[in-house]
Amino acid sequence: MAILSELATEVLIPVASVIGIAFAVVQWVFVSRVKLSPAAAASGGSKNGYGDYLIEEEEGLNDHNVVVKCAEIQNAISEGATSFLFTEYQYVGIFMSIFAVVIFLFLGSVEGFSTNSQPCTYSKDKYCKPALFNALFSTVSFLLGAITSLVSGFLGMKIATYANARTTLEARKGVGKAFITAFRSGAVMGFLLASSGLVVLYITINVFKLYYGDDWEGLFESITGYGLGGSSMALFGRVGGGIYTKAADVGADLVGKVERNIPEDDPRNPAVIADNVGDNVGDIAGMGSDLFGSYAESSCAALVVASISSFGINHDFTGMCYPLLVSSVGIIVCLITTLFATDFFEVKAVNEIEPALKKQLIISTALMTVGIAIISWLALPAKFTIFNFGAQKEVSNWGLFFCVSIGLWAGLIIGFVTEYYTSNAYSPVQDVADSCRTGAATNVIFGLALGYKSVIIPIFAIAVSIYVSFSIAAMYGIAVAALGMLSTIATGLAIDAYGPISDNAGGIAEMAGMSHRIRERTDALDAAGNTTAAIGKGFAIGSAALVSLALFGAFVSRAGVKVVDVLSPKVFIGLIVGAMLPYWFSAMTMKSVGSAALKMVEEVRRQFNTIPGLMEGTAKPDYATCVKISTDASIKEMIPPGALVMLTPLIVGTLFGVETLSGVLAGALVSGVQIAISASNTGGAWDNAKKYIEAGASEHARTLGPKGSDCHKAAVIGDTIGDPLKDTSGPSLNILIKLMAVESLVFAPFFATHGGLLFKYF
Amino acid sequence: MAILSELATEVLIPVASVIGIAFAVVQWVFVSRVKLSPAAAASGGSKNGYGDYLIEEEEGLNDHNVVVKCAEIQNAISEGATSFLFTEYQYVGIFMSIFAVVIFLFLGSVEGFSTNSQPCTYSKDKYCKPALFNALFSTVSFLLGAITSLVSGFLGMKIATYANARTTLEARKGVGKAFITAFRSGAVMGFLLASSGLVVLYITINVFKLYYGDDWEGLFESITGYGLGGSSMALFGRVGGGIYTKAADVGADLVGKVERNIPEDDPRNPAVIADNVGDNVGDIAGMGSDLFGSYAESSCAALVVASISSFGINHDFTGMCYPLLVSSVGIIVCLITTLFATDFFEVKAVNEIEPALKKQLIISTALMTVGIAIISWLALPAKFTIFNFGAQKEVSNWGLFFCVSIGLWAGLIIGFVTEYYTSNAYSPVQDVADSCRTGAATNVIFGLALGYKSVIIPIFAIAVSIYVSFSIAAMYGIAVAALGMLSTIATGLAIDAYGPISDNAGGIAEMAGMSHRIRERTDALDAAGNTTAAIGKGFAIGSAALVSLALFGAFVSRAGVKVVDVLSPKVFIGLIVGAMLPYWFSAMTMKSVGSAALKMVEEVRRQFNTIPGLMEGTAKPDYATCVKISTDASIKEMIPPGALVMLTPLIVGTLFGVETLSGVLAGALVSGVQIAISASNTGGAWDNAKKYIEAGASEHARTLGPKGSDCHKAAVIGDTIGDPLKDTSGPSLNILIKLMAVESLVFAPFFATHGGLLFKYF
Repeated sequence: MAILSELATEVLIPVASVIGIAFAVVQWVFVSRVKLSPAAAASGGSKNGYGDYLIEEEEGLNDHNVVVKCAEIQNAISEGATSFLFTEYQYVGIFMSIFAVVIFLFLGSVEGFSTNSQPCTYSKDKYCKPALFNALFSTVSFLLGAITSLVSGFLGMKIATYANARTTLEARKGVGKAFITAFRSGAVMGFLLASSGLVVLYITINVFKLYYGDDWEGLFESITGYGLGGSSMALFGRVGGGIYTKAADVGADLVGKVERNIPEDDPRNPAVIADNVGDNVGDIAGMGSDLFGSYAESSCAALVVASISSFGINHDFTGMCYPLLVSSVGIIVCLITTLFATDFFEVKAVNEIEPALKKQLIISTALMTVGIAIISWLALPAKFTIFNFGAQKEVSNWGLFFCVSIGLWAGLIIGFVTEYYTSNAYSPVQDVADSCRTGAATNVIFGLALGYKSVIIPIFAIAVSIYVSFSIAAMYGIAVAALGMLSTIATGLAIDAYGPISDNAGGIAEMAGMSHRIRERTDALDAAGNTTAAIGKGFAIGSAALVSLALFGAFVSRAGVKVVDVLSPKVFIGLIVGAMLPYWFSAMTMKSVGSAALKMVEEVRRQFNTIPGLMEGTAKPDYATCVKISTDASIKEMIPPGALVMLTPLIVGTLFGVETLSGVLAGALVSGVQIAISASNTGGAWDNAKKYIEAGASEHARTLGPKGSDCHKAAVIGDTIGDPLKDTSGPSLNILIKLMAVESLVFAPFFATHGGLLFKYF
Repeated sequence: MAILSELATEVLIPVASVIGIAFAVVQWVFVSRVKLSPAAAASGGSKNGYGDYLIEEEEGLNDHNVVVKCAEIQNAISEGATSFLFTEYQYVGIFMSIFAVVIFLFLGSVEGFSTNSQPCTYSKDKYCKPALFNALFSTVSFLLGAITSLVSGFLGMKIATYANARTTLEARKGVGKAFITAFRSGAVMGFLLASSGLVVLYITINVFKLYYGDDWEGLFESITGYGLGGSSMALFGRVGGGIYTKAADVGADLVGKVERNIPEDDPRNPAVIADNVGDNVGDIAGMGSDLFGSYAESSCAALVVASISSFGINHDFTGMCYPLLVSSVGIIVCLITTLFATDFFEVKAVNEIEPALKKQLIISTALMTVGIAIISWLALPAKFTIFNFGAQKEVSNWGLFFCVSIGLWAGLIIGFVTEYYTSNAYSPVQDVADSCRTGAATNVIFGLALGYKSVIIPIFAIAVSIYVSFSIAAMYGIAVAALGMLSTIATGLAIDAYGPISDNAGGIAEMAGMSHRIRERTDALDAAGNTTAAIGKGFAIGSAALVSLALFGAFVSRAGVKVVDVLSPKVFIGLIVGAMLPYWFSAMTMKSVGSAALKMVEEVRRQFNTIPGLMEGTAKPDYATCVKISTDASIKEMIPPGALVMLTPLIVGTLFGVETLSGVLAGALVSGVQIAISASNTGGAWDNAKKYIEAGASEHARTLGPKGSDCHKAAVIGDTIGDPLKDTSGPSLNILIKLMAVESLVFAPFFATHGGLLFKYF
């Protein structure tokens, strides 16, 4: 029926993945050409760069000491990050093992661990594979998802800590070179993650197919474990990493900036390495695992719905693989888009950085729209049907093109609204900065109000996407809309990872004692990175909302629920308790950051008080102890919020049943998305309001500054409050809403059979 | 069927109301015995009090000047409050007139303004009164509800501003006398409001019955206008009053405490009178109108459901009036409860105040449980049926007793949880105070986390109440559960109004230059008032949640919606947009407070800079200008949030129809209740953390203090941020969720007939 043959599909997906991975390797090779050893640096400019075009300004290229110092600092950061991740992985290992057993036992028990074939859930006249084997394959795909996420996150963090000092060194030659180094490194992470996520999923499907054969229902039900695995890893990445990064940041600032009056990233501050490590584990590994989770989940949600639609029923493999094909096209589109930043155009001045990054978003969205149109035309039959809560709904290929596109463009709108509310180029942040005149209290009041207000347009954008894509293709439409938003994930992640790399580069410049001028260049890179980080968070939340809804729909279908009626008390209490969960979760994560930061404060104070010569710069602080404190605290503190997320669906589903669980998922989704958006925008706005005062780039900004003025102090308080909001509690909510939904989907067969004990017996 | 005859019912309700009003008058007479003229004061103690029992300590009883000054200040506050309310009433008048016309036109258009009888909505075989007359009577009951709320609020404010200086004067004789004065004044407000609300509703029903005769469906549909009127008035009271009080408070603090370093309530501060006026218009008139609205709405919701249940179908007047009978019993129970505070026991020392107030809650709840049991036994048949979305559900009288009681006790639990999280006697607030050691930022982070955490138990309490009462008696069960929570409204309001009266008394003592000792006594009264204010807000929010759900149920029934399916995109987009509305609304109200406070700051600064001798205390500030600024700003600033609340149901219902509107109502409810609880508890905790440091009552507290220490300054910042959260944006959300629900209910006939234009034509 479709133009694209099954064979072409079987070739296209792995080829696109391989191209993506190859592209990542090439980018890495480019970055690695920047030598981090004094010998190479001394031998001069031409070998050190990767082009021979005019270098604007060079400074201190022959200073051996600087290079040695940068290499040292990079090493410390890299070791700190690796040590955190390895500690984390031990806990991840234990958790994943236990949870794998839980999945196997729960799902295996659906048919009492019988090895007999059973009637299919959706086509009762056919026989499907036994639940016991579904349990086994779900467990395997769960582990595969977790491992893929883990490996991608680890490699991303490695390249980031590999690139940060190189970016600093390139900054000596000019802002353009530094930008390209940072951006290329981000691209390594982006392409690696997008491609490996796709190829592992693709291989898994093909291997599982050997066993499942004709039983596509069972096949794609087992595949959902992949999404759960990716998302479980994201729990550790986002929540653990988020607590780590902010405990270090807040702890370093509270003593350094507030008590000791030394600048940010001052090497005398014992927590400074931990702070830089935090940027890598929180913003690189954490963000990566979050988006990987969304990507895996939306693919799985789409696949599971497709398997019971005409694609699955008619065994139309190309149609089935439509979600993977969209992602494949996305990799190619992002590859072309990246060239616009690194090759077709060149960033020459500070004020060209932010436009260059914004152009990445616009170009990738525009190209992707064309890409979606082509692949929808090639891969889909003109007409097909999609499962819609019991009935089959007729859909056209152009309808599906529209679903994917609306998700893609909604993402862009969310991105730009986020930029408007968090960039200090616009009035909202300037108003917040202005409110610092009357002190920290008004700064906080205006900042909170800004965050609340910034929710309005993104929610309307999400609501319209939902309405349109649902009207066209039911829950499948929503799943592919989420995929559309995530189709440019490689570019999104590249831009996103660019931020912490630049942030680190600035820190290294400061610590290595490089000149004010170099620091200014890295600061400019960093400022642009702040805004793009906020945009990235906007994307992450928007896609999380769509993904969760898609998973929710898949869960409801699989659990055999036909109607989730708000007027039923079982559902309503689920709804109101679900809406409460994000608050409970945020209370935990914020308190965690607070407690971990206080431990850090004590250690930093202890070092300042007991190490003679530390303030004078004659003695070196003990960085490693601070890294250890952040590591231990973050692992310990993530257990309660992690338990809340993981246990809620199991407890509610088992005791109260699928109806109440549906209410909980819907409530957590509609309430969590609001807090997540407002928290991250409030935090971003405070951060940039502070930067606005510090930079003093306009007449208005100068009346508020300079650094150290009362206004600036008020702004610093806002920034510190915003840290856990924008980097821990806000983004962690993505995980809350997604993970509960995918967990419910995976356990749906169990809940549908054995759930609701409490209502059964009382 | 019921033991209580129709005649007995007809007698009992007005008699209880009249007793309530008479009791309020008696309390007022007691308060008025405290003379506020120098002549009477000079003549000595025995005339001045109302008992002749031992007076612990007397101080400055013969100081004429103090009495004169108190009278002067009281006059200024009373004039300021009256002037604000009259300005507000002009806008209320315009708004109510326009809205009355809107109601009439929308509802009249349902049957095209025809004066012919029409088939009834629920019993198609019978004929009901024409929609045009329903529109007319709805408009009339709308105006009656608004006027009753307005008059009760105004009288409450009058007695509060009458009592504040009297409380100050009584404080000279000891804390016990001052307590009784403040508490009796609060009781005047409580009983007046509860009784007049009941009696006007009762009379309206009886008068309307003359026209409606047998058509109880139409009769009670028209009566719902009463709830809408009460709630519309609450919009002005809560939102306008909330902006007023916090603009004045924050503005006064920002210049007085922060810039000029003068204490709170210092008479040199030009905004000090506006601040005291604010306590009256925000916490007395605003809170009163909010609870009056809840009370009127839950009664109306119960009545409209009852009219289409067996009570209405069988014309069982006593059964129909069950909600009013519960309220009648409530008045008697509260009357007895009040005597425990004023007559049976006596507060002799500072540490007896808070227990005395808490005992009021416990005693009223315990007695009321007995009262509900008796009236359920007397007024209800053993078995009857309740309308349940199309079907009739059988219910027993004991089932209904259980519904009312569970609401009542859930209110008590919410009250106690609120106390735990906001009183500085417990660890949560002490932890927040402790976090001030590391500055304002950690104080804010811990405070926000506390607010989020404080949501958990109240939501579970509400969820259990909803599940149980709905399971027993469908939406009627929820309406009477809300009524149960509000049945002790007279005591609740008495305790609540006691707070601002004591606060004002402290302000007057400071301004009149009374001794430190007297100020300490009023401070003790005020501190207890802070906690009870938080408890009151908890009640208000809890009841608002139940009331909104009951109204939502009534709306859904009236609009003929059988199922509100989350899986339908129309409903889901309503849900997610509804969950966003509280954020939009809070952004508006918080920004309003910020902007109004900045205007106040400018004026106060101007006066300090231009009036010579003001700081030295030789010149008098211009209080009136500050009062005018607060008045004008609050009226102007309440228009956008007011418009959001009033227009949302009309726009959504007309353009998107009843399904989407149902989603919006449910979303706003489940999301708004969380923000409301967390905002008001966060604010309360910050306030009391500051008081904890100031009072220095424990070893721990003294390490944080004294006033003016760095810790204390950090605590003051938290307190200032909390002001708009706890007194404006948080409580205003009650109005958002209730008003949208009752408005939807009143306009339900219109939406059901003409709504959903957008989906009809696209």
